[in-house]
Amino acid sequence: MNFSSKLVEDAVNEISKLPGIGKKSALRIALHLLRQEEGQSLALSGAIVKLRQNICYCKHCFNIADADVCSICAAKTRNRATICVVEGVTDVMAIENTGQYNGLYHVLGGVISPMEGLGPADLKIPQLVARAKEPGTTEIILALSSTMEADTTAFYITRQLQGTGVSVSAIARGVPVGSELEYTDEITLGRSITARTAYL
Amino acid sequence: MNFSSKLVEDAVNEISKLPGIGKKSALRIALHLLRQEEGQSLALSGAIVKLRQNICYCKHCFNIADADVCSICAAKTRNRATICVVEGVTDVMAIENTGQYNGLYHVLGGVISPMEGLGPADLKIPQLVARAKEPGTTEIILALSSTMEADTTAFYITRQLQGTGVSVSAIARGVPVGSELEYTDEITLGRSITARTAYL
Repeated sequence: MNFSSKLVEDAVNEISKLPGIGKKSALRIALHLLRQEEGQSLALSGAIVKLRQNICYCKHCFNIADADVCSICAAKTRNRATICVVEGVTDVMAIENTGQYNGLYHVLGGVISPMEGLGPADLKIPQLVARAKEPGTTEIILALSSTMEADTTAFYITRQLQGTGVSVSAIARGVPVGSELEYTDEITLGRSITARTAYL
Repeated sequence: MNFSSKLVEDAVNEISKLPGIGKKSALRIALHLLRQEEGQSLALSGAIVKLRQNICYCKHCFNIADADVCSICAAKTRNRATICVVEGVTDVMAIENTGQYNGLYHVLGGVISPMEGLGPADLKIPQLVARAKEPGTTEIILALSSTMEADTTAFYITRQLQGTGVSVSAIARGVPVGSELEYTDEITLGRSITARTAYL
């Protein structure tokens, strides 16, 4: 494509490297950046630089943070006895949005995946074991995806936590709320029967 | 949404102001910016700042440019007798991509639209008339959209150019190449019959 400007071409090239944005969307964004007020475009570029240069990872739970300790670990109101283990920072956001959990988190940074060359040492598993051994910790909740790799990781973590005295659980698998039973796949449905909840 | 980081929240807010990008995509982009190499994220923000601060508009045709005069007006190989009138810079790119046009352009910056408060004085119509009166100019091609506002603008420009001695034409309206005749709307089909091309 002929952009008749090297500046536009450079911007389009950089913008189109972002996930989910092709050349056409990138051009649309670049022209939008040109049309809108200059301060607005500079605010965007400033936010990107600040995000990248000032972001920290919490030294306790490895969640993204603005300081050494993230806002969740620093909060006085959280239940410090429970640690919820997740793969990534988006999982923390997802669980926080439910409003159903008031404990701490531990971000692994992925799951064990020999295909991707990710072994237990590449994840924050040793740090999790160390946290589990701290006197205040009583429960670890594994909130991992429902994939082969995540199940392997959950199994590995459970083995590592044997003998620490903390209780280890995993989030429930079952028929999603609002979905029809007949369209649920048989593995999920099978699990939801095995792990049924007692009512009476 | 709880981002557990003001930096991420700021970046997501700024990114989600871009056209076609919602909060979820913005978060995905922000986390991508965090994951990728720092140089890559800084290149993006640098390209945005440079785009915004160094862009010029061609003093002849008002196309975007890296200098006072755009690459098309500066090119020695273009036919300087013909001026193609378009609404915006994306139209210049679209026509350039056809490879069918070798003349100059004139970017109006919109069309006459009382609804949006855009009158003839807000567009580059006086500048077009001035260019039409220059000795070298012989033909003006109106390449505007096929809307009420664009038709009004074309009519207004034609009136303004009366007496200048240049020939004025508009791009052909008709059945798009590759589309089926029976699915073409009747106005387009009607126009394509009226403006038929002689073969023999």
